[in-house]
Amino acid sequence: MTTVLSPHIHELFAKRAQQVLPPIYNAARQGHSSLISFTFGFADPALFPREDIAAASAAVLATDADAALNYGMDFVELRDQIIAKLHSQGVFAHEDNVLISYGSSQLLALLPRVFVEPGDVVVIEGPSFMGAVRSFADAGARLIMVPTDDFGMNLDALETVLDELHTQQIRPKFIYTIPTFHNPTGTTMPLVQRKRLLALSATYDTLIVEDDPYGDLRFAGEALPTLTSLDHDDRVIYISSFSKILAPGLRMGWAYAHPAIIERLGMFKVEGSSGPFLTRVVANYCADGRLAQHIQKLTTHYHNKCQLMLDAIGREFPTEVRVIRPDGGFYVWCELPQGVDVANLLMRAEQRGSTFLPGTRCFANGQGNDAFRLAFSFLPSEQIVEGIAHIGAALREM
Amino acid sequence: MTTVLSPHIHELFAKRAQQVLPPIYNAARQGHSSLISFTFGFADPALFPREDIAAASAAVLATDADAALNYGMDFVELRDQIIAKLHSQGVFAHEDNVLISYGSSQLLALLPRVFVEPGDVVVIEGPSFMGAVRSFADAGARLIMVPTDDFGMNLDALETVLDELHTQQIRPKFIYTIPTFHNPTGTTMPLVQRKRLLALSATYDTLIVEDDPYGDLRFAGEALPTLTSLDHDDRVIYISSFSKILAPGLRMGWAYAHPAIIERLGMFKVEGSSGPFLTRVVANYCADGRLAQHIQKLTTHYHNKCQLMLDAIGREFPTEVRVIRPDGGFYVWCELPQGVDVANLLMRAEQRGSTFLPGTRCFANGQGNDAFRLAFSFLPSEQIVEGIAHIGAALREM
Repeated sequence: MTTVLSPHIHELFAKRAQQVLPPIYNAARQGHSSLISFTFGFADPALFPREDIAAASAAVLATDADAALNYGMDFVELRDQIIAKLHSQGVFAHEDNVLISYGSSQLLALLPRVFVEPGDVVVIEGPSFMGAVRSFADAGARLIMVPTDDFGMNLDALETVLDELHTQQIRPKFIYTIPTFHNPTGTTMPLVQRKRLLALSATYDTLIVEDDPYGDLRFAGEALPTLTSLDHDDRVIYISSFSKILAPGLRMGWAYAHPAIIERLGMFKVEGSSGPFLTRVVANYCADGRLAQHIQKLTTHYHNKCQLMLDAIGREFPTEVRVIRPDGGFYVWCELPQGVDVANLLMRAEQRGSTFLPGTRCFANGQGNDAFRLAFSFLPSEQIVEGIAHIGAALREM
Repeated sequence: MTTVLSPHIHELFAKRAQQVLPPIYNAARQGHSSLISFTFGFADPALFPREDIAAASAAVLATDADAALNYGMDFVELRDQIIAKLHSQGVFAHEDNVLISYGSSQLLALLPRVFVEPGDVVVIEGPSFMGAVRSFADAGARLIMVPTDDFGMNLDALETVLDELHTQQIRPKFIYTIPTFHNPTGTTMPLVQRKRLLALSATYDTLIVEDDPYGDLRFAGEALPTLTSLDHDDRVIYISSFSKILAPGLRMGWAYAHPAIIERLGMFKVEGSSGPFLTRVVANYCADGRLAQHIQKLTTHYHNKCQLMLDAIGREFPTEVRVIRPDGGFYVWCELPQGVDVANLLMRAEQRGSTFLPGTRCFANGQGNDAFRLAFSFLPSEQIVEGIAHIGAALREM
């Protein structure tokens, strides 16, 4: 086999495949290094319920192997567990409202297949989760960024954007938001804003994509209804997953939406089911309240780690660094005083042995050189303390 | 949530999603019935290595849970096992030649994303595997069907087709073929024809997609090189899976092709990896020659079942029914004498308690009303005998 494909064969590619897009920035592709890394929102391996997942696999193979190992659909009981979870959140889902997927990243990448033609407008938050944003951009979406503040998406700015688009007779395909324990800022949109966001989506007749991977991991403040549970107008597409509440490596997520949208997401999920074996293993694990118990355990654990990080930050960072305290999720967001550039900070922190996600990697447009994200989820406590000291020392010398 | 999506929301769908295509005919969607069913190429559950897969899951979770359960790439050792398997077939694959997927159906559905614009020509066999053919059609491919005979695709007919297309200055994107233990006919393309097919693809400067899910399951005749192993011109895209040789429910397949093609298939495999957990479980199972041993066991088993079916057919079917004896795979293809319509036969067989795949479901153009496919893979022996008796009785009364 030759290394270069002959130009004649290259001509056979469809237009959409002529150019290879660089892969969406993927935590999974990161090599290992000796740095203490706050960069990625990995789950804490210390809390993986490995014995219980092994027991679930064994039980599925002992009692249901004929169906688990042959061709088949997603396991109905997993879908029913997801429906029950949605009911507990005040969302009255039926079976045709739910699609099970290989992680929520698959759903975020399928959304533009359903909604976006090149040039169509998608409204995003800035900063945001670049995995999703890049998949919209790769589909040719024209991204309009709305800034966030301590209460999530700034809705005055959103209203201005929607109004301007309306003047130009442009209807955005959807507004992509992470209203609860935002990635990367950790902020949560208050109830009154949630209602206003829904009202704006109705006024300007567009959809909302509510990405909610962290919602179950609340360790402070009062629980808030999801946008989805407040929606009575079929305007919200809800996306979540087992990645943060069970294990990312199982690759299992779900969407809730109007059946007409679910049907179309399913149409572009070309491989069909998410695996008769895998859906049974996850369902077996989650049964009998075990997932709910595990979530409680995770929440306490992540609360402790977050507090540990915040305490270390309190000791180590100059007070000029503005830190957003999250009520849940995986991340602490830090804003730098004027004149301190995050690339410079990152270089100095790495020289001391620690690394993090610079804000510039959280914006579609290169903004963010005055901020950074720290994931407290993955590292063991002692490394959190040590790493924050590295970053603090780097900050103090600047 | 209302049942009908408001027309205003409907307008937000991309053009490609305005209409919902009916799902590709999917064995998995078939409900259970009391009929003895020869319809689907399910694996025989009697041979699922359930204890070994449970042991593999347990071993992965006991020794490698941190990587298996967190975000990550496909397990490198599984890719290396696939590369070793390709080497043993005379294909000198490197890591950038291989993509692991959620079953081969995912790859067959991704192929048109890489190659097909609406109206592009794809050459298929008639009859063929409709799961693949439908995914090409759904992408807007113009399907040109080449008939098959006892030696697979009729290459004289192919040459005529390619020549006519060439006259019209149309270059087909690829030729889709199942050269070994064909689905549905069970036929195998002889070596001299394989070489001619490759030569034709070079002469007319197109690609070949070699779909080879059954190739390991040879129980008669001499092993033949794959088209891929004969190709020295980067013209073949090879697709296979663990479905027939291990368990379909694990949803694990692979493609081999030029790196430029693999890169593009990966770009459209939007969810990224095929799962850190699942790829480890399959690799753990397959290690140390266990997969090869299992394939030997399967081959003997399917040979026995095929022979049992052929013996029953010999006793029960009128001699006017032409039966193609396969050298491997899952299927026996039967051609009816003139005047016997398969829909009529199917109705009568079902009244007696058995069902099968009518030929009409194996052609893109409605042909096939004089043929049917019997899968010997799934049913236990006694049901094979009983079911063939039902069909035989139906045939004799016609």
